[in-house]
Amino acid sequence: MSHHRTFLINGSFDQAISAFDRGFAYGDGVFRTMQIRNGLPVNWPLHYQKLVADCAAIGIVCPSAELLMNDLQQLFPVNEFDENEIKVAKIIITRGEGDRGYAPPAVTAPTRAVIKSAMPQYAALNYAQGVNLRVCETRLATQPKLAGIKHLNRLENVLARMEWREDAIFDGLLLDQQGHVIECTMSNIFARFDNKLITPDLTLCGVAGITRQRILWLESVLGLTVQVTSITLDQLLQADEVIICNSLYGVFQVNSIGAKSWQQQKLASIIRNALIHD
Amino acid sequence: MSHHRTFLINGSFDQAISAFDRGFAYGDGVFRTMQIRNGLPVNWPLHYQKLVADCAAIGIVCPSAELLMNDLQQLFPVNEFDENEIKVAKIIITRGEGDRGYAPPAVTAPTRAVIKSAMPQYAALNYAQGVNLRVCETRLATQPKLAGIKHLNRLENVLARMEWREDAIFDGLLLDQQGHVIECTMSNIFARFDNKLITPDLTLCGVAGITRQRILWLESVLGLTVQVTSITLDQLLQADEVIICNSLYGVFQVNSIGAKSWQQQKLASIIRNALIHD
Repeated sequence: MSHHRTFLINGSFDQAISAFDRGFAYGDGVFRTMQIRNGLPVNWPLHYQKLVADCAAIGIVCPSAELLMNDLQQLFPVNEFDENEIKVAKIIITRGEGDRGYAPPAVTAPTRAVIKSAMPQYAALNYAQGVNLRVCETRLATQPKLAGIKHLNRLENVLARMEWREDAIFDGLLLDQQGHVIECTMSNIFARFDNKLITPDLTLCGVAGITRQRILWLESVLGLTVQVTSITLDQLLQADEVIICNSLYGVFQVNSIGAKSWQQQKLASIIRNALIHD
Repeated sequence: MSHHRTFLINGSFDQAISAFDRGFAYGDGVFRTMQIRNGLPVNWPLHYQKLVADCAAIGIVCPSAELLMNDLQQLFPVNEFDENEIKVAKIIITRGEGDRGYAPPAVTAPTRAVIKSAMPQYAALNYAQGVNLRVCETRLATQPKLAGIKHLNRLENVLARMEWREDAIFDGLLLDQQGHVIECTMSNIFARFDNKLITPDLTLCGVAGITRQRILWLESVLGLTVQVTSITLDQLLQADEVIICNSLYGVFQVNSIGAKSWQQQKLASIIRNALIHD
């Protein structure tokens, strides 16, 4: 792997992650992944707001927006972008260095790592025709203190993602221990039943992404009644249509979940269009 | 913090943790903490066995015992030890570096980080008279796929440990979401009821430490019937005595849990003595 100038640690190209960083020791931190277009982070206010909220939820003081924007500008100089080129920034904020032991030091200085990568090449067919999901055997644990937060404790997602290797499967559906649908390994999920658009309640587990939030705000534009509620797998499979979303690919129509398939539907493309104009 | 020659990354004093390490990105790894006496890891066969088992449980091939022993010998040269001096080694094994995304690369090379620290100074009173616990508000999530494993996803322990600052509280008791006693933030727990010694079942959450295992093996030596079972907080508070254990301090008698206190008892000292001779 060539890592030349592909990451910044605390604003420096020359730093590495300390072996004493609590992000490394305990996953004691949070992160975000976002598109960068022409050197600028897409939907930055929402990403930063979420970063601050997630940090606060575990007692970390998030670095200022100015500091992070400065990092992004250093790592993504605008003259390195071709027209309409999109790159990806991942921002990791940890509680910083600490001695051995779970108790944080009395004074901590958060670590910020900003990592550059190329935009994944999503197949044009995924946008035109949709994607296939599988139901993961790995189920999400119920933890109200961490639910909704995009924290660094992501072994459940890793184990779930290790369940398949077929390229034909775009993402894996994650249920909670009681069999409710929560999300996919890297996506949030919505289901339409007639004129009702439902997305799972994430107060007990799952990650509340910002594209999910942006779709929730589209209620009046879409002419659908939006509901955040709990939904079982059986109920999901009876939906009129299902879509998934995240900050990189945007929105995809779901063609199939395991043996269940849907005829080609239009909701993903309608929402994609609405999001462009929101 | 002075980190001079206090850690080895993949056998080298000059390496750091990569910003792309999956241990940092996702807590995708496991760890162990052990005493080093006169340059040698105490209870090494059990620690290594557990490291291999924990790695295997999340699909990591653990580095060889030879490699890790070589690291320990480099980091803890025997001539740096005073007589009877104890230092602490923490071994972290991660899945290694990866690109963005939960799917591990087709070929991975695990990262091994070995970190040296001083032995914590436990108060002599803790050994002579026992310790006090509090009941944590943070409860452990149920995740059978990760239960028992000492993995790097430890935000629950961090949040629980952040609940108190008083030095008088040695550790915090962790319950599961249903109110069963599981462990403490850095300790396993046992309760004696007459001639029965009970320790919580850890098949749904918790970390199964090696000192817990060594105590389970003492059954016949102690003349107690040992049972691994589920136990509620109310039941625990009715125990004749309670002890906690880990690989660093060994075994401590519990004097109190919140408002409940016990008269001074002897089980911890009996077990400490038995462990020395096992």
